[in-house]
Amino acid sequence: MPVMVTDHRKLPRRRGEALNVAIYQATLAELAEVGYARLTMERVAERAKASKASLYRRWPTRIELVMDAVYHVLPDALSVPDTGSLRGDILAALRRTAEALAGPAGEAMRGLLSEALGDESRAATFREHSQGTGRRLMREIVRRAVERGEVAPEDVTPRRLDAGQALLRQHFLFQGLPIPDELLVQIADEVMVPLFTRA
Amino acid sequence: MPVMVTDHRKLPRRRGEALNVAIYQATLAELAEVGYARLTMERVAERAKASKASLYRRWPTRIELVMDAVYHVLPDALSVPDTGSLRGDILAALRRTAEALAGPAGEAMRGLLSEALGDESRAATFREHSQGTGRRLMREIVRRAVERGEVAPEDVTPRRLDAGQALLRQHFLFQGLPIPDELLVQIADEVMVPLFTRA
Repeated sequence: MPVMVTDHRKLPRRRGEALNVAIYQATLAELAEVGYARLTMERVAERAKASKASLYRRWPTRIELVMDAVYHVLPDALSVPDTGSLRGDILAALRRTAEALAGPAGEAMRGLLSEALGDESRAATFREHSQGTGRRLMREIVRRAVERGEVAPEDVTPRRLDAGQALLRQHFLFQGLPIPDELLVQIADEVMVPLFTRA
Repeated sequence: MPVMVTDHRKLPRRRGEALNVAIYQATLAELAEVGYARLTMERVAERAKASKASLYRRWPTRIELVMDAVYHVLPDALSVPDTGSLRGDILAALRRTAEALAGPAGEAMRGLLSEALGDESRAATFREHSQGTGRRLMREIVRRAVERGEVAPEDVTPRRLDAGQALLRQHFLFQGLPIPDELLVQIADEVMVPLFTRA
């Protein structure tokens, strides 16, 4: 009875995305419950009520699965509201990132980086699958400010776009949690806003 | 014959420092040769021709020994020459830091952070023994610029002092080596100099 056999490759795209989301949620729940070191593809599959094969087809390694699950919760260019000012947008982006780092995405980043720093082939996988979400988010925020006339286009450079996230990450990696809101306000007011609006 | 018994606690301070330097050099050589993961107190003691007891008396844990060895080679406020300009000093500091990260100090930082990210008690040791050398170095460079009248004192904040090192570290940790000199020039020209001299 071939009608009973589910061929995942032939399922409509929507079904595939719904399944991906279920798997991301299971991955994040496992990260929160057992941590990165004890997370396995088996446990995630079981939790998401999916087959192990369907996981491995999408994510050949645990690193790739966890990275995609993290990107699913990190704020991106579409998810941060337009507050109407550069300062408001930057602060909103930093706060959303800090919130994510305080949850399973932070546990994932600690685990992924810990592994990557000790193993060059894992570091390569980590780099290949990095999506540059933090910079894209800042680029979108600054693009809005350029449109409003708040920022001159020639003041926009990749290093400036990265500075705020670099300071936030440095705190998270070297000082750990909690990330004080005061730090985010200082990053916005003392570093990011002046870098883009000094003219 | 008590005269034959060496009591290290009674040795003149100079001897103690010379021994420390020998131990730091042995630690850095081991880092270069076998890497952080395989570095042991035994191997360092042997290489430095020192007793294991003398190592453990100074550094109860491997983390503390390796951190002190790293601080021995990282540029500090005294070791970076006064080039006469803020830009020159910042670039010199970033280049010295990047050079150190390309050698055993970089291997140490990868290993230490990898360990700290996976173990909260090691993270605590790591934080307790952190000396804030990067920020002190930038503080000294900016202090010189304030004295020259190049920087207004009210423009100096901890976040700004940290921004350049945070960008450099982010590249080192997430992209790895090599650290392109172009990146250092951009950090100096697009981020650090404007942050302190925008008025």
